[in-house]
Amino acid sequence: MSGNTQVLLTERPSGKLETSNFTIRDGDMPTVGDGEVLVRSVLLSIDAANRAWMQGATYKSAVEEGDVMHGGAIAEVLESRSDRFAEGDLVWGEVGWQEYAALDARHLAPVGDHRPLTHHLSVLGVAGLTAYHGLLDVVGIEAGETLLVSAAAGSVGSLVGQIGKIAGARVVGIAGGPEKCQWVVDELGFDACIDYRGEKLSRALREHCPDGVDVYFDNVGGPILEAALFAMNLHGRISCCGAVSQYDSDAPTGPRGVPGLIVTKRLTMKGFIVMDYADQQERAIADLSAWAADGRLTVVEDVIDGLEAAPDALVGLLAGQNRGKRMVRVSPDPVG
Amino acid sequence: MSGNTQVLLTERPSGKLETSNFTIRDGDMPTVGDGEVLVRSVLLSIDAANRAWMQGATYKSAVEEGDVMHGGAIAEVLESRSDRFAEGDLVWGEVGWQEYAALDARHLAPVGDHRPLTHHLSVLGVAGLTAYHGLLDVVGIEAGETLLVSAAAGSVGSLVGQIGKIAGARVVGIAGGPEKCQWVVDELGFDACIDYRGEKLSRALREHCPDGVDVYFDNVGGPILEAALFAMNLHGRISCCGAVSQYDSDAPTGPRGVPGLIVTKRLTMKGFIVMDYADQQERAIADLSAWAADGRLTVVEDVIDGLEAAPDALVGLLAGQNRGKRMVRVSPDPVG
Repeated sequence: MSGNTQVLLTERPSGKLETSNFTIRDGDMPTVGDGEVLVRSVLLSIDAANRAWMQGATYKSAVEEGDVMHGGAIAEVLESRSDRFAEGDLVWGEVGWQEYAALDARHLAPVGDHRPLTHHLSVLGVAGLTAYHGLLDVVGIEAGETLLVSAAAGSVGSLVGQIGKIAGARVVGIAGGPEKCQWVVDELGFDACIDYRGEKLSRALREHCPDGVDVYFDNVGGPILEAALFAMNLHGRISCCGAVSQYDSDAPTGPRGVPGLIVTKRLTMKGFIVMDYADQQERAIADLSAWAADGRLTVVEDVIDGLEAAPDALVGLLAGQNRGKRMVRVSPDPVG
Repeated sequence: MSGNTQVLLTERPSGKLETSNFTIRDGDMPTVGDGEVLVRSVLLSIDAANRAWMQGATYKSAVEEGDVMHGGAIAEVLESRSDRFAEGDLVWGEVGWQEYAALDARHLAPVGDHRPLTHHLSVLGVAGLTAYHGLLDVVGIEAGETLLVSAAAGSVGSLVGQIGKIAGARVVGIAGGPEKCQWVVDELGFDACIDYRGEKLSRALREHCPDGVDVYFDNVGGPILEAALFAMNLHGRISCCGAVSQYDSDAPTGPRGVPGLIVTKRLTMKGFIVMDYADQQERAIADLSAWAADGRLTVVEDVIDGLEAAPDALVGLLAGQNRGKRMVRVSPDPVG
């Protein structure tokens, strides 16, 4: 067995993240302590949140310079010194950007039987659960309401809009570039999709949301959140899922209209993270599996090969290059 | 009978509001149409919202140049051409900054028997109802929680903090100037009050809210809202009542931390205006009257004499000169 390929964050980005902020090295194989398991990474999740972790502590601790880059992955147990898992089990956990890791078994979750494995990172993983709970439980959506979704071609947004359609809403997306917008309408079934790079947002919102916006699912923050605030209906609800426009920067700005428009329009803005809904996961997984199986939910995955490609994959994701859930294949699926 | 003294907004402020933006004139006595009543203004309410109405449409239409300045007042009915009110009745409505007005009787509310009349503008008026519903119904407060209140010496804030104490919360105010802060603690019974002009907010918040902030009642927006966002506990609630820091300006800014901190701390921000709770007014009035009567609520009023003083009264309020509910006495209380 060779060494352990690792990707380190060697320089905290001072502006936009670049691949030169990372260093790839051939690290040591980890030693396995009591209560730990040795895992081999199979599929590494690539998310905008990876970038947010470099800005400082969020719901988890910050990534420091010299750290193996943080990231969740599906991995196979190669050796176990815990009675929680046995060799050959598949787990989900904070493996980091490396081939092998020795991890505390208490911090790992078992991965279910469902195949393909990629679904555990997309529709049945954090992306799917975030879309499901963030729309249906955090703010709710009623048939006939207008739902606006930013980052509509992304891992979460692509699912939010489709779940909104299943609920009977009029669904309008926001994405970057005409091709992507066309794809959101044609392949994902949104009623319309606004190209925030090519169109004047305020005018496009008036055109495509003639009855105003009842629910805005915010993945991006910044100027798009600001425009959405102006388009909201009285008593509108905003599900705050992320702020990708603010992550790749040192100087986040706040949206004008907070709190002025929140008061005058009596809006509710609610933040959440998916862990808050852990006790309701079973219902979510059942619904998402059923919708994916009967074709009402188109699951879009964007799988990139090789751990060495992870820095590129994240930089590209922050530039909006992905369609659906981006992940890096670190090693082949174990034979089931 | 002489003419009708009126205060007009003759120039929309381009930066801070100044008294020179207003013109006082001796206008015509109004004529009374069918369904209307002629009223004489008694007590004019002076509120930060007066300034917001100059920025454009809010929950009501904007004040335009040349308009009699908008404002609610308690007034006496002098003549009625409606079966809703009779001569001698007291009403609350959009009288504007003038002595006499002919108003559609359907837009007026009767004023109850309670004396002094000033209470109908303070504890039993919009200020009291805003404090009551904005705290107890919009976000709720539990015994032992930490409640932070900005504009703590103002009409709404002074009541919010006291209602928080009645509910058993630890209450920390924010106000401008050491004397005002001392007064908030000594006279209103807050546990502490931070001078945002003299203290570093982030440090003072750590000192006075050692367990973090569970509920923030926001009257001001801007940098104080931003500092509060950083001090909030996980799952904290923010009641968005106003944005007085943003009204006296042409260029409102947004708080950094929106939506980033809303997501990571899973905060809820909710805007409201008091009309949303019209159907629950009876309970609110009963509680507020009882608390004022038994001395648990100190009602602070700041009454300025003469309609001509209204521009000064508003400019001073925006500079934070008032303590408690500011109003202008336009004419003596009618003999009851």
